[in-house]
Amino acid sequence: MARFFISASNMFGGIAYLTSAERDHIKVLRLRQGETFTVCDGSGNDYTCRLDKTEEGDLCGRIIKTEPSVGEPTVNVAVFAALAKGDKNETVIQKCVELGAREINIFPSARCVSRINGQAAAAKKTERWQKISLEAAKQSGRGIIPQVRYIEDFNIAVAMAANAELPLFLYENEDKLSIHDAIMDKKDAKSISVFTGPEGGFDESEVKLAVEKGMLSVTLGPRILRCETAPMCAVTAAMLLTGNL
Amino acid sequence: MARFFISASNMFGGIAYLTSAERDHIKVLRLRQGETFTVCDGSGNDYTCRLDKTEEGDLCGRIIKTEPSVGEPTVNVAVFAALAKGDKNETVIQKCVELGAREINIFPSARCVSRINGQAAAAKKTERWQKISLEAAKQSGRGIIPQVRYIEDFNIAVAMAANAELPLFLYENEDKLSIHDAIMDKKDAKSISVFTGPEGGFDESEVKLAVEKGMLSVTLGPRILRCETAPMCAVTAAMLLTGNL
Repeated sequence: MARFFISASNMFGGIAYLTSAERDHIKVLRLRQGETFTVCDGSGNDYTCRLDKTEEGDLCGRIIKTEPSVGEPTVNVAVFAALAKGDKNETVIQKCVELGAREINIFPSARCVSRINGQAAAAKKTERWQKISLEAAKQSGRGIIPQVRYIEDFNIAVAMAANAELPLFLYENEDKLSIHDAIMDKKDAKSISVFTGPEGGFDESEVKLAVEKGMLSVTLGPRILRCETAPMCAVTAAMLLTGNL
Repeated sequence: MARFFISASNMFGGIAYLTSAERDHIKVLRLRQGETFTVCDGSGNDYTCRLDKTEEGDLCGRIIKTEPSVGEPTVNVAVFAALAKGDKNETVIQKCVELGAREINIFPSARCVSRINGQAAAAKKTERWQKISLEAAKQSGRGIIPQVRYIEDFNIAVAMAANAELPLFLYENEDKLSIHDAIMDKKDAKSISVFTGPEGGFDESEVKLAVEKGMLSVTLGPRILRCETAPMCAVTAAMLLTGNL
Protein backbone atom coordinates (compact mmCIF):
# COMPACT_ATOMS: atom_id res chain seq x y z
CA MET A 1 0.00 0.00 0.00
CA ALA A 2 1.25 3.52 -0.79
CA ARG A 3 2.81 5.15 2.26
CA PHE A 4 3.33 8.80 3.21
CA PHE A 5 4.94 10.47 6.18
CA ILE A 6 2.80 13.40 7.33
CA SER A 7 3.29 15.64 10.35
CA ALA A 8 0.75 14.85 13.10
CA SER A 9 -0.27 18.52 13.00
CA ASN A 10 -1.67 17.94 9.51
CA MET A 11 -4.13 15.35 10.81
CA PHE A 12 -7.24 16.51 12.62
CA GLY A 13 -10.95 15.89 12.62
CA GLY A 14 -10.38 12.42 11.17
CA ILE A 15 -8.76 13.89 8.05
CA ALA A 16 -5.15 13.72 6.87
CA TYR A 17 -4.47 16.94 4.97
CA LEU A 18 -1.98 16.51 2.14
CA THR A 19 0.60 18.94 0.80
CA SER A 20 0.53 19.71 -2.92
CA ALA A 21 3.62 17.50 -3.39
CA GLU A 22 1.79 14.58 -1.76
CA ARG A 23 -1.33 15.21 -3.83
CA ASP A 24 0.82 15.18 -6.96
CA HIS A 25 2.43 11.93 -5.85
CA ILE A 26 -1.00 10.38 -5.32
CA LYS A 27 -1.93 11.38 -8.88
CA VAL A 28 1.27 9.79 -10.20
CA LEU A 29 0.37 6.58 -8.34
CA ARG A 30 -3.08 6.77 -10.02
CA LEU A 31 -4.86 6.24 -6.73
CA ARG A 32 -8.57 6.78 -7.17
CA GLN A 33 -11.13 8.21 -4.75
CA GLY A 34 -12.23 5.51 -2.32
CA GLU A 35 -8.95 3.62 -2.54
CA THR A 36 -6.83 3.31 0.60
CA PHE A 37 -3.30 4.34 1.48
CA THR A 38 -1.23 4.59 4.63
CA VAL A 39 -0.16 7.74 6.38
CA CYS A 40 2.48 7.61 9.09
CA ASP A 41 3.13 10.39 11.62
CA GLY A 42 6.84 9.51 11.91
CA SER A 43 6.39 8.73 15.60
CA GLY A 44 5.45 5.10 15.15
CA ASN A 45 1.74 5.43 14.30
CA ASP A 46 0.11 4.30 11.06
CA TYR A 47 -3.21 5.68 9.77
CA THR A 48 -5.08 3.81 7.07
CA CYS A 49 -6.85 6.46 4.96
CA ARG A 50 -9.45 6.41 2.22
CA LEU A 51 -8.78 8.90 -0.57
CA ASP A 52 -11.38 11.65 -0.53
CA LYS A 53 -11.75 15.37 -1.24
CA THR A 54 -11.93 18.26 1.21
CA GLU A 55 -14.73 20.84 1.02
CA GLU A 56 -12.30 22.91 -1.02
CA GLY A 57 -11.99 20.08 -3.53
CA ASP A 58 -8.42 19.06 -2.61
CA LEU A 59 -7.42 15.43 -2.31
CA CYS A 60 -7.14 14.30 1.31
CA GLY A 61 -7.23 11.11 3.36
CA ARG A 62 -10.21 10.13 5.52
CA ILE A 63 -8.71 8.22 8.47
CA ILE A 64 -10.42 4.84 8.87
CA LYS A 65 -7.96 3.02 11.15
CA THR A 66 -5.14 3.98 13.52
CA GLU A 67 -2.54 1.51 14.80
CA PRO A 68 1.11 1.33 15.87
CA SER A 69 3.47 0.91 12.89
CA VAL A 70 4.38 -2.76 12.56
CA GLY A 71 7.74 -1.86 11.01
CA GLU A 72 9.42 -0.67 14.21
CA PRO A 73 11.77 -3.09 15.97
CA THR A 74 11.84 -3.44 19.77
CA VAL A 75 15.54 -2.59 19.88
CA ASN A 76 17.19 0.72 18.97
CA VAL A 77 20.10 0.06 16.65
CA ALA A 78 22.32 3.06 15.92
CA VAL A 79 24.71 2.75 12.99
CA PHE A 80 28.04 4.60 13.03
CA ALA A 81 29.72 4.17 9.63
CA ALA A 82 32.97 5.81 8.54
CA LEU A 83 32.85 8.21 5.62
CA ALA A 84 33.48 6.24 2.41
CA LYS A 85 34.12 6.91 -1.26
CA GLY A 86 31.48 7.31 -3.97
CA ASP A 87 27.93 6.35 -3.07
CA LYS A 88 28.81 3.74 -0.44
CA ASN A 89 27.42 5.77 2.48
CA GLU A 90 24.17 6.14 0.53
CA THR A 91 23.95 2.38 0.10
CA VAL A 92 24.58 1.92 3.81
CA ILE A 93 21.84 4.41 4.73
CA GLN A 94 19.28 2.88 2.37
CA LYS A 95 19.93 -0.70 3.43
CA CYS A 96 20.23 -0.02 7.17
CA VAL A 97 16.93 1.90 7.17
CA GLU A 98 15.24 -1.04 5.42
CA LEU A 99 16.76 -3.44 7.93
CA GLY A 100 15.40 -1.43 10.87
CA ALA A 101 18.18 0.88 12.14
CA ARG A 102 16.98 3.75 14.33
CA GLU A 103 19.60 6.28 13.23
CA ILE A 104 22.67 6.45 11.01
CA ASN A 105 25.76 8.50 11.82
CA ILE A 106 28.62 9.10 9.40
CA PHE A 107 32.03 10.16 10.74
CA PRO A 108 35.58 10.76 9.47
CA SER A 109 38.27 8.27 10.40
CA ALA A 110 42.09 8.34 10.12
CA ARG A 111 42.26 6.17 7.00
CA CYS A 112 39.22 7.64 5.22
CA VAL A 113 39.99 8.26 1.58
CA SER A 114 37.02 10.58 1.28
CA ARG A 115 36.71 13.97 3.02
CA ILE A 116 33.95 16.49 3.61
CA ASN A 117 35.32 20.02 3.77
CA GLY A 118 33.37 22.61 5.69
CA GLN A 119 29.96 22.93 7.26
CA ALA A 120 28.17 23.84 4.04
CA ALA A 121 29.35 20.65 2.33
CA ALA A 122 28.38 18.60 5.38
CA ALA A 123 24.94 20.17 5.46
CA LYS A 124 24.40 19.46 1.76
CA LYS A 125 25.50 15.83 2.15
CA THR A 126 23.31 15.34 5.20
CA GLU A 127 20.29 16.76 3.40
CA ARG A 128 20.80 14.25 0.57
CA TRP A 129 21.35 11.38 3.02
CA GLN A 130 18.20 12.31 4.94
CA LYS A 131 16.19 12.11 1.70
CA ILE A 132 17.52 8.60 1.10
CA SER A 133 16.47 7.66 4.61
CA LEU A 134 12.97 9.03 3.99
CA GLU A 135 12.57 7.11 0.72
CA ALA A 136 13.81 3.89 2.31
CA ALA A 137 11.50 4.39 5.31
CA LYS A 138 8.49 4.82 2.99
CA GLN A 139 9.39 1.85 0.84
CA SER A 140 10.10 -0.54 3.69
CA GLY A 141 7.14 0.43 5.87
CA ARG A 142 8.99 2.05 8.77
CA GLY A 143 7.11 3.94 11.47
CA ILE A 144 9.80 6.60 11.81
CA ILE A 145 12.21 8.37 9.46
CA PRO A 146 15.63 7.40 10.83
CA GLN A 147 17.81 10.45 11.39
CA VAL A 148 21.09 10.73 9.49
CA ARG A 149 23.87 12.86 10.98
CA TYR A 150 27.39 13.77 9.99
CA ILE A 151 29.63 13.83 13.06
CA GLU A 152 32.74 15.87 12.33
CA ASP A 153 34.92 14.40 15.05
CA PHE A 154 35.90 10.76 15.51
CA ASN A 155 36.11 11.16 19.30
CA ILE A 156 32.57 12.48 19.52
CA ALA A 157 31.33 9.62 17.34
CA VAL A 158 32.96 7.11 19.71
CA ALA A 159 31.53 8.88 22.77
CA MET A 160 28.02 8.78 21.27
CA ALA A 161 28.28 5.14 20.19
CA ALA A 162 29.72 4.10 23.56
CA ASN A 163 26.53 5.38 25.17
CA ALA A 164 24.50 2.42 23.90
CA GLU A 165 23.79 -0.45 26.28
CA LEU A 166 25.64 -2.73 23.88
CA PRO A 167 28.28 -0.74 21.96
CA LEU A 168 29.84 -2.90 19.24
CA PHE A 169 33.05 -1.93 17.48
CA LEU A 170 33.45 -4.03 14.30
CA TYR A 171 37.14 -4.70 13.95
CA GLU A 172 38.65 -6.88 11.22
CA ASN A 173 41.64 -7.91 13.36
CA GLU A 174 39.48 -9.04 16.26
CA ASP A 175 39.54 -12.83 16.46
CA LYS A 176 38.10 -13.69 19.85
CA LEU A 177 34.63 -12.21 20.35
CA SER A 178 32.08 -12.79 17.59
CA ILE A 179 29.18 -10.40 17.06
CA HIS A 180 26.90 -13.40 17.65
CA ASP A 181 28.26 -14.08 21.14
CA ALA A 182 28.41 -10.40 22.07
CA ILE A 183 24.71 -9.93 21.27
CA MET A 184 23.63 -13.25 22.81
CA ASP A 185 25.39 -12.25 26.06
CA LYS A 186 23.23 -9.13 26.23
CA LYS A 187 20.07 -10.09 24.38
CA ASP A 188 17.87 -7.76 26.41
CA ALA A 189 19.81 -4.61 25.56
CA LYS A 190 17.39 -1.88 24.53
CA SER A 191 20.04 -0.04 22.53
CA ILE A 192 22.86 -1.39 20.37
CA SER A 193 25.40 0.64 18.41
CA VAL A 194 27.42 -0.78 15.53
CA PHE A 195 30.59 1.12 14.64
CA THR A 196 32.27 0.31 11.31
CA GLY A 197 35.42 1.54 9.55
CA PRO A 198 36.41 2.99 6.17
CA GLU A 199 37.91 1.21 3.12
CA GLY A 200 41.35 1.03 4.73
CA GLY A 201 40.12 -0.19 8.11
CA PHE A 202 40.59 1.47 11.49
CA ASP A 203 43.88 2.85 12.71
CA GLU A 204 45.16 1.07 15.83
CA SER A 205 44.92 4.27 17.87
CA GLU A 206 41.21 4.42 16.99
CA VAL A 207 40.61 0.87 18.15
CA LYS A 208 42.43 1.63 21.39
CA LEU A 209 40.33 4.74 22.01
CA ALA A 210 37.04 2.93 21.33
CA VAL A 211 37.91 0.10 23.72
CA GLU A 212 39.00 2.59 26.38
CA LYS A 213 35.64 4.29 26.06
CA GLY A 214 33.92 0.98 26.77
CA MET A 215 33.12 -0.37 23.30
CA LEU A 216 33.33 -4.11 22.64
CA SER A 217 35.62 -5.10 19.80
CA VAL A 218 33.85 -7.84 17.80
CA THR A 219 34.43 -9.77 14.57
CA LEU A 220 32.08 -10.42 11.66
CA GLY A 221 33.90 -13.66 10.87
CA PRO A 222 36.96 -14.72 8.88
CA ARG A 223 35.92 -13.09 5.60
CA ILE A 224 36.92 -9.46 4.98
CA LEU A 225 33.75 -7.48 4.34
CA ARG A 226 33.76 -4.29 2.30
CA CYS A 227 33.17 -1.14 4.31
CA GLU A 228 29.58 -0.84 3.04
CA THR A 229 28.75 -4.50 3.69
CA ALA A 230 29.77 -4.56 7.36
CA PRO A 231 27.03 -2.20 8.65
CA MET A 232 24.25 -4.12 6.82
CA CYS A 233 25.59 -7.38 8.16
CA ALA A 234 25.83 -6.02 11.72
CA VAL A 235 22.31 -4.53 11.68
CA THR A 236 20.94 -7.85 10.35
CA ALA A 237 22.71 -9.69 13.19
CA ALA A 238 21.32 -7.29 15.80
CA MET A 239 17.75 -7.61 14.46
CA LEU A 240 17.92 -11.37 14.00
CA LEU A 241 19.26 -12.16 17.47
CA THR A 242 16.84 -9.84 19.30
CA GLY A 243 13.75 -11.34 17.67
CA ASN A 244 13.20 -8.50 15.19
CA LEU A 245 13.62 -10.40 11.95
CA MET B 1 47.76 -9.58 2.01
CA ALA B 2 47.40 -9.64 -1.81
CA ARG B 3 45.49 -12.70 -2.97
CA PHE B 4 45.42 -14.57 -6.28
CA PHE B 5 43.47 -17.57 -7.50
CA ILE B 6 45.77 -19.91 -9.42
CA SER B 7 45.01 -23.30 -10.87
CA ALA B 8 46.63 -26.10 -8.83
CA SER B 9 48.30 -27.28 -12.05
CA ASN B 10 50.38 -24.07 -12.04
CA MET B 11 51.94 -24.97 -8.70
CA PHE B 12 54.70 -27.56 -8.58
CA GLY B 13 58.15 -28.04 -7.10
CA GLY B 14 57.31 -25.55 -4.35
CA ILE B 15 56.76 -22.77 -6.89
CA ALA B 16 53.57 -20.98 -7.91
CA TYR B 17 53.96 -20.02 -11.56
CA LEU B 18 52.17 -16.80 -12.48
CA THR B 19 50.48 -15.79 -15.70
CA SER B 20 51.56 -12.55 -17.33
CA ALA B 21 48.33 -10.90 -16.13
CA GLU B 22 49.14 -11.89 -12.56
CA ARG B 23 52.72 -10.69 -12.89
CA ASP B 24 51.42 -7.35 -14.16
CA HIS B 25 49.02 -7.16 -11.22
CA ILE B 26 51.89 -7.80 -8.80
CA LYS B 27 53.79 -4.91 -10.39
CA VAL B 28 50.77 -2.65 -10.00
CA LEU B 29 50.60 -3.62 -6.31
CA ARG B 30 54.32 -2.70 -6.10
CA LEU B 31 55.13 -5.95 -4.33
CA ARG B 32 58.90 -6.36 -4.05
CA GLN B 33 61.01 -9.50 -4.17
CA GLY B 34 60.99 -11.19 -0.77
CA GLU B 35 57.56 -9.84 0.16
CA THR B 36 54.74 -12.32 0.72
CA PHE B 37 51.35 -12.82 -0.91
CA THR B 38 48.66 -15.48 -0.86
CA VAL B 39 47.79 -17.85 -3.65
CA CYS B 40 44.59 -19.89 -3.49
CA ASP B 41 43.87 -22.96 -5.61
CA GLY B 42 40.11 -22.32 -5.62
CA SER B 43 39.50 -25.62 -3.86
CA GLY B 44 39.87 -24.31 -0.34
CA ASN B 45 43.67 -24.28 0.04
CA ASP B 46 45.79 -21.19 0.68
CA TYR B 47 49.52 -20.98 -0.12
CA THR B 48 51.62 -18.22 1.42
CA CYS B 49 54.28 -17.35 -1.15
CA ARG B 50 57.43 -15.21 -1.15
CA LEU B 51 57.89 -13.20 -4.34
CA ASP B 52 60.88 -14.51 -6.29
CA LYS B 53 62.08 -15.01 -9.87
CA THR B 54 62.20 -18.18 -11.92
CA GLU B 55 65.40 -19.25 -13.72
CA GLU B 56 63.95 -17.53 -16.78
CA GLY B 57 63.72 -14.29 -14.79
CA ASP B 58 59.92 -14.21 -14.48
CA LEU B 59 58.21 -13.25 -11.23
CA CYS B 60 56.89 -16.29 -9.34
CA GLY B 61 55.91 -17.29 -5.83
CA ARG B 62 58.04 -19.54 -3.65
CA ILE B 63 55.56 -21.48 -1.48
CA ILE B 64 56.46 -21.16 2.21
CA LYS B 65 53.24 -22.32 3.88
CA THR B 66 50.15 -24.34 2.88
CA GLU B 67 46.92 -24.34 4.89
CA PRO B 68 43.16 -24.66 4.43
CA SER B 69 41.53 -21.31 3.49
CA VAL B 70 40.08 -19.75 6.64
CA GLY B 71 37.43 -17.96 4.59
CA GLU B 72 35.26 -21.00 3.86
CA PRO B 73 32.16 -21.54 6.00
CA THR B 74 31.12 -24.97 7.27
CA VAL B 75 27.71 -24.66 5.62
CA ASN B 76 26.96 -24.49 1.88
CA VAL B 77 24.61 -21.61 1.22
CA ALA B 78 23.21 -21.41 -2.31
CA VAL B 79 21.57 -18.13 -3.30
CA PHE B 80 18.71 -18.12 -5.83
CA ALA B 81 17.84 -14.51 -6.68
CA ALA B 82 15.29 -13.39 -9.26
CA LEU B 83 16.53 -11.37 -12.22
CA ALA B 84 16.34 -7.67 -11.32
CA LYS B 85 16.71 -4.28 -13.01
CA GLY B 86 19.96 -2.36 -13.41
CA ASP B 87 22.97 -3.54 -11.45
CA LYS B 88 21.03 -5.10 -8.56
CA ASN B 89 22.02 -8.67 -9.41
CA GLU B 90 25.65 -7.54 -9.47
CA THR B 91 25.31 -6.07 -5.99
CA VAL B 92 23.72 -9.31 -4.78
CA ILE B 93 26.57 -11.37 -6.24
CA GLN B 94 29.31 -9.18 -4.78
CA LYS B 95 27.79 -9.01 -1.30
CA CYS B 96 26.73 -12.66 -1.09
CA VAL B 97 30.23 -13.82 -2.09
CA GLU B 98 31.73 -11.61 0.64
CA LEU B 99 29.26 -12.99 3.14
CA GLY B 100 30.20 -16.58 2.31
CA ALA B 101 27.66 -17.95 -0.19
CA ARG B 102 28.80 -21.07 -2.07
CA GLU B 103 27.02 -20.31 -5.34
CA ILE B 104 24.66 -17.72 -6.79
CA ASN B 105 21.88 -18.53 -9.24
CA ILE B 106 19.84 -15.92 -11.09
CA PHE B 107 16.45 -16.89 -12.55
CA PRO B 108 13.47 -15.24 -14.29
CA SER B 109 10.22 -14.90 -12.37
CA ALA B 110 6.67 -13.98 -13.42
CA ARG B 111 6.85 -10.37 -12.20
CA CYS B 112 10.43 -9.68 -13.31
CA VAL B 113 10.66 -6.29 -14.96
CA SER B 114 13.99 -7.24 -16.51
CA ARG B 115 14.50 -9.93 -19.17
CA ILE B 116 17.45 -11.72 -20.73
CA ASN B 117 16.74 -12.67 -24.34
CA GLY B 118 18.60 -15.57 -25.83
CA GLN B 119 21.54 -17.75 -24.91
CA ALA B 120 24.18 -15.32 -26.16
CA ALA B 121 22.88 -12.56 -23.88
CA ALA B 122 22.71 -15.00 -20.97
CA ALA B 123 26.29 -16.16 -21.58
CA LYS B 124 27.54 -12.57 -21.71
CA LYS B 125 25.75 -11.67 -18.48
CA THR B 126 27.02 -14.79 -16.74
CA GLU B 127 30.58 -14.05 -17.78
CA ARG B 128 30.32 -10.57 -16.26
CA TRP B 129 28.69 -11.93 -13.09
CA GLN B 130 31.42 -14.56 -12.72
CA LYS B 131 34.08 -11.83 -12.86
CA ILE B 132 32.32 -9.99 -10.04
CA SER B 133 32.32 -13.20 -8.03
CA LEU B 134 36.07 -13.66 -8.63
CA GLU B 135 36.86 -10.09 -7.55
CA ALA B 136 34.72 -10.41 -4.42
CA ALA B 137 36.29 -13.79 -3.59
CA LYS B 138 39.80 -12.29 -3.86
CA GLN B 139 38.94 -9.21 -1.83
CA SER B 140 37.14 -11.05 0.97
CA GLY B 141 39.63 -13.92 1.30
CA ARG B 142 37.45 -16.78 0.08
CA GLY B 143 38.94 -20.22 -0.58
CA ILE B 144 36.76 -20.83 -3.65
CA ILE B 145 35.36 -18.72 -6.47
CA PRO B 146 31.59 -19.11 -6.04
CA GLN B 147 29.92 -20.14 -9.28
CA VAL B 148 27.29 -17.85 -10.80
CA ARG B 149 24.66 -19.37 -13.08
CA TYR B 150 21.71 -18.09 -15.04
CA ILE B 151 18.85 -20.58 -14.85
CA GLU B 152 16.42 -19.94 -17.68
CA ASP B 153 13.42 -21.68 -16.16
CA PHE B 154 11.72 -20.86 -12.87
CA ASN B 155 10.69 -24.50 -12.35
CA ILE B 156 14.26 -25.72 -12.67
CA ALA B 157 15.46 -23.05 -10.23
CA VAL B 158 12.88 -24.26 -7.70
CA ALA B 159 13.83 -27.90 -8.24
CA MET B 160 17.52 -27.09 -7.69
CA ALA B 161 16.86 -24.96 -4.62
CA ALA B 162 14.51 -27.56 -3.13
CA ASN B 163 17.41 -30.03 -3.16
CA ALA B 164 19.12 -28.31 -0.21
CA GLU B 165 18.71 -29.84 3.23
CA LEU B 166 17.09 -26.59 4.33
CA PRO B 167 15.39 -24.90 1.34
CA LEU B 168 14.16 -21.43 2.32
CA PHE B 169 11.69 -19.47 0.20
CA LEU B 170 11.71 -15.81 1.28
CA TYR B 171 8.13 -14.60 0.95
CA GLU B 172 6.97 -11.14 1.96
CA ASN B 173 3.43 -12.30 2.75
CA GLU B 174 4.59 -15.08 5.05
CA ASP B 175 3.78 -14.15 8.64
CA LYS B 176 4.21 -17.34 10.61
CA LEU B 177 7.65 -18.86 10.19
CA SER B 178 10.65 -16.56 10.66
CA ILE B 179 13.98 -17.28 8.98
CA HIS B 180 15.48 -17.36 12.49
CA ASP B 181 13.22 -20.18 13.68
CA ALA B 182 13.52 -22.12 10.41
CA ILE B 183 17.32 -22.17 10.66
CA MET B 184 17.40 -22.83 14.41
CA ASP B 185 15.11 -25.84 13.86
CA LYS B 186 17.69 -27.31 11.51
CA LYS B 187 20.99 -25.87 12.71
CA ASP B 188 23.01 -28.86 11.55
CA ALA B 189 21.93 -28.63 7.91
CA LYS B 190 24.98 -28.91 5.68
CA SER B 191 23.25 -27.11 2.80
CA ILE B 192 20.84 -24.18 2.86
CA SER B 193 19.25 -22.47 -0.14
CA VAL B 194 17.74 -18.99 -0.01
CA PHE B 195 15.27 -18.14 -2.77
CA THR B 196 14.31 -14.48 -3.25
CA GLY B 197 11.95 -12.63 -5.59
CA PRO B 198 12.06 -9.70 -8.04
CA GLU B 199 11.05 -6.06 -7.46
CA GLY B 200 7.35 -6.89 -7.73
CA GLY B 201 7.51 -9.91 -5.45
CA PHE B 202 6.55 -13.50 -6.28
CA ASP B 203 3.37 -14.47 -8.06
CA GLU B 204 1.07 -16.63 -5.92
CA SER B 205 1.41 -19.54 -8.32
CA GLU B 206 5.17 -19.43 -7.82
CA VAL B 207 4.83 -19.57 -4.05
CA LYS B 208 2.46 -22.53 -4.41
CA LEU B 209 4.87 -24.40 -6.66
CA ALA B 210 7.84 -23.81 -4.34
CA VAL B 211 5.94 -25.05 -1.30
CA GLU B 212 4.70 -28.11 -3.23
CA LYS B 213 8.31 -28.89 -4.10
CA GLY B 214 9.17 -28.89 -0.41
CA MET B 215 10.52 -25.38 0.18
CA LEU B 216 9.81 -23.64 3.47
CA SER B 217 8.12 -20.26 3.14
CA VAL B 218 9.80 -17.90 5.64
CA THR B 219 9.66 -14.20 6.50
CA LEU B 220 12.48 -11.68 6.97
CA GLY B 221 10.35 -9.66 9.37
CA PRO B 222 7.73 -6.92 9.15
CA ARG B 223 9.80 -4.51 7.05
CA ILE B 224 9.64 -4.80 3.26
CA LEU B 225 13.17 -5.37 1.99
CA ARG B 226 14.23 -4.41 -1.53
CA CYS B 227 14.88 -7.34 -3.82
CA GLU B 228 18.66 -6.87 -3.58
CA THR B 229 18.63 -6.54 0.22
CA ALA B 230 16.77 -9.80 0.94
CA PRO B 231 19.50 -12.20 -0.29
CA MET B 232 22.25 -10.42 1.70
CA CYS B 233 20.06 -10.46 4.79
CA ALA B 234 19.23 -14.16 4.34
CA VAL B 235 22.86 -15.20 3.77
CA THR B 236 23.90 -13.22 6.88
CA ALA B 237 21.20 -15.02 8.89
CA ALA B 238 22.33 -18.43 7.63
CA MET B 239 26.01 -17.72 8.44
CA LEU B 240 25.27 -16.14 11.82
CA LEU B 241 23.03 -18.94 13.11
CA THR B 242 25.32 -21.78 11.96
CA GLY B 243 28.40 -20.34 13.70
CA ASN B 244 30.00 -18.96 10.56
CA LEU B 245 30.05 -15.27 11.44
